Amino acid sequence: MSRHFRTHTTSRLTFPSSSGGLAITRLPFSSTSSKLLLQQLSSTSPAAAATAVTITTSSPARNLQRARASAAEQGMEEHGKAAVGWAARDDSGVLSPYNFSRRAQKDDDVTIKVLYCGICHTDLHVVKNDWGNAMYPVVPGHEIVGVVTGVGAGVTKFKAGDTVGVGFFVGSCRTCDSCGKGYENYCPTMVITSNGKDYGGAATQGGFSDAIVVNEHYVLRVPAGLPLDGAAPLLCAGVTVYSPMVIHGLNAPGKHVGVVGLGGLGHVAVKFAKAFGMRVTVISTSPGKRREALEHLGADEFLVSRDAGQMAAAAGTMDGILNTVSAWHPVAPLFALMKPMAQMVFVGAPTRPLELPAYAIVPGGKGITGNCVGGIRDCQAMLDFAGEHGITAEVEVIKMDYVNTAMERLEKNDVRYRFVIDVAGSSLGGSGDDKI
Amino acid sequence: MSRHFRTHTTSRLTFPSSSGGLAITRLPFSSTSSKLLLQQLSSTSPAAAATAVTITTSSPARNLQRARASAAEQGMEEHGKAAVGWAARDDSGVLSPYNFSRRAQKDDDVTIKVLYCGICHTDLHVVKNDWGNAMYPVVPGHEIVGVVTGVGAGVTKFKAGDTVGVGFFVGSCRTCDSCGKGYENYCPTMVITSNGKDYGGAATQGGFSDAIVVNEHYVLRVPAGLPLDGAAPLLCAGVTVYSPMVIHGLNAPGKHVGVVGLGGLGHVAVKFAKAFGMRVTVISTSPGKRREALEHLGADEFLVSRDAGQMAAAAGTMDGILNTVSAWHPVAPLFALMKPMAQMVFVGAPTRPLELPAYAIVPGGKGITGNCVGGIRDCQAMLDFAGEHGITAEVEVIKMDYVNTAMERLEKNDVRYRFVIDVAGSSLGGSGDDKI
Repeated sequence: MSRHFRTHTTSRLTFPSSSGGLAITRLPFSSTSSKLLLQQLSSTSPAAAATAVTITTSSPARNLQRARASAAEQGMEEHGKAAVGWAARDDSGVLSPYNFSRRAQKDDDVTIKVLYCGICHTDLHVVKNDWGNAMYPVVPGHEIVGVVTGVGAGVTKFKAGDTVGVGFFVGSCRTCDSCGKGYENYCPTMVITSNGKDYGGAATQGGFSDAIVVNEHYVLRVPAGLPLDGAAPLLCAGVTVYSPMVIHGLNAPGKHVGVVGLGGLGHVAVKFAKAFGMRVTVISTSPGKRREALEHLGADEFLVSRDAGQMAAAAGTMDGILNTVSAWHPVAPLFALMKPMAQMVFVGAPTRPLELPAYAIVPGGKGITGNCVGGIRDCQAMLDFAGEHGITAEVEVIKMDYVNTAMERLEKNDVRYRFVIDVAGSSLGGSGDDKI
Repeated sequence: MSRHFRTHTTSRLTFPSSSGGLAITRLPFSSTSSKLLLQQLSSTSPAAAATAVTITTSSPARNLQRARASAAEQGMEEHGKAAVGWAARDDSGVLSPYNFSRRAQKDDDVTIKVLYCGICHTDLHVVKNDWGNAMYPVVPGHEIVGVVTGVGAGVTKFKAGDTVGVGFFVGSCRTCDSCGKGYENYCPTMVITSNGKDYGGAATQGGFSDAIVVNEHYVLRVPAGLPLDGAAPLLCAGVTVYSPMVIHGLNAPGKHVGVVGLGGLGHVAVKFAKAFGMRVTVISTSPGKRREALEHLGADEFLVSRDAGQMAAAAGTMDGILNTVSAWHPVAPLFALMKPMAQMVFVGAPTRPLELPAYAIVPGGKGITGNCVGGIRDCQAMLDFAGEHGITAEVEVIKMDYVNTAMERLEKNDVRYRFVIDVAGSSLGGSGDDKI
């Protein structure tokens, strides 16, 4: 299994505290999900994710990036299916039409015409090179829904005309412990859908494009009847909350779950939890979200985390908490809401370390566990569950030419709750501007 | 179920950070295990453990304590079996002979002559009133091994002459969710063995005494052939590591566990892990402990946590970590040693909050979970396992008259690894100074 770790840009990362110990790295990511960088690190070398890997950002490398971007664009990759997408060429993050080619369809590949693609915070970080690992030109997008237009001779699960989805990754080793347990999302050589490296060394380009070619193992079936625009964000936001709910037993009727944060992930978590038959309390710092949580999303209770009285009344009542907030916030008071031995699932990515007092976890045997997207099994189960219960994300559908405005609005969290690009309904521009 | 929460001393506790949120409390405990206080809080009112409970330490109350202590001593409690122990009368923590009485043996009680009693860091905190909740006079001790001298008419599990143990608690509600799952250690109304309140409102006194009367449900059978002095610390230190090893699957041959800290808890954890057939790596800041870990305790590897090279080489190799260190230390580098989805069990009690960067737990789906002693089922299973494998703690056996020196040495961690009082072999003093 060959290793693909070309040092384009490197960024010296130092541990935030005076540990004096290992120079574990601290990346300058500005907000929300850090998974892309961290996945990159862990997908290239198991050690890289955690040890003294030196990644240095220096201006010469940045020029190299720009040179490489334009060469690829003019020279077109040598083979494969002509494709058009919207890509960022540099850390301004501005996206514009970009002609490239998808690899030639192999025996176990599925070719998909992209219909819709959600915009995740990770996309925003990557196009702006917040994590120092953008390999321009970058076509973002890993919340993809589309229709199969062709399958390789060896494909058994899909046929032309099927409605399918593609999520955060399009490859994994399928031999490691994590892959063996169905958690390809933790495979050390996972290939991410956008701004990744496939096993041939080529950059992977995401769903802000007309078509994509993906190995059948990483293609998901989208249940009939599910609105496709609202289904797209489930491929990342949906599985990121669904998978840990299953892992930690927060999927049983009668249990009580707290959902912290009512954004792209939180609102979907509320929907899943209600569909599991659970009692759902939304925990937020903003009282203004009460009505949305209770009346629109169907939560049972709304708890303002700054209200000591409300917090005291809810102490020890929750079987678990899904914490989806990426801004730094005190987590200790939240542990008090949980029953003994309960887990707080953490899917946010604040840049500043959380404060975890021992008294918050030791006396009650409580814990906090991170989660990053989900494996293929959980992703398909999540889509099937969404299909059964008619669950989709609350989305604002846009055309591709609005994407740069959307990115600006996303940076200010000005969306309820996810932007989804109507790719097939957009004029993508590029040299041959024919709609697919 | 009546509530027993008499405010003897109260201590205002403020959350360590400018959370602006809930005035969760931060107790001035100086080191090591905070479980006693936190248990006290959680055992008296579920809300107390986590919410704006005001506990204020003020000099009038302290005088009240002293007055109460001497009255009880002279006036002897009204009924029950005369007993002699060593108690602390005030926050100097100095112990001296103390005559008191054990409750009259009820139908479901077992009367035990105490043979040995381990000294746990919690005892040290309580006698010095580090956590502001000492109810003087306090007879410490919750790592008790002894012989049954009498049983109530309803007792079926034990008979006179049996060798038994008593651990951290001697009562629980047996109706709550935690009790129902065999985790009485997380029961909100758990009655702790020393410095607690039983359901009748009487103070509980620990194992630094000649005899103790305990409900049979909370009495453990000590396997034949196990040296009793070395077995005593298992009743607390042993179950505190054994229980989470079982809960988190760190008890299977071939798995790799890291043990952080080689003290009272850590050294027992190494022994259990080897007996489970696991690969054991001791992680320490002190290279000087290498030989002890590898040659004496049988660990497979020794890893100096300040050595970046060693840490990088071990990245992603561990199925879990048992972190027994109570001094503050950076935990982020330790997560990198674990495989995806692994848990760090935390049983220490640093007073300063741990620093938990999101990148340490989110990308690999890793977590950190606290643990406080264990339930009765796990404690008995642990003793049986220790009996099968001949596992005891490494102890320094002392007589009762050395206990104050031992407490001073314990404060400086000057013991390898646990002091155990030979209670039956000690002259306990007190009014009727006859050995039992």
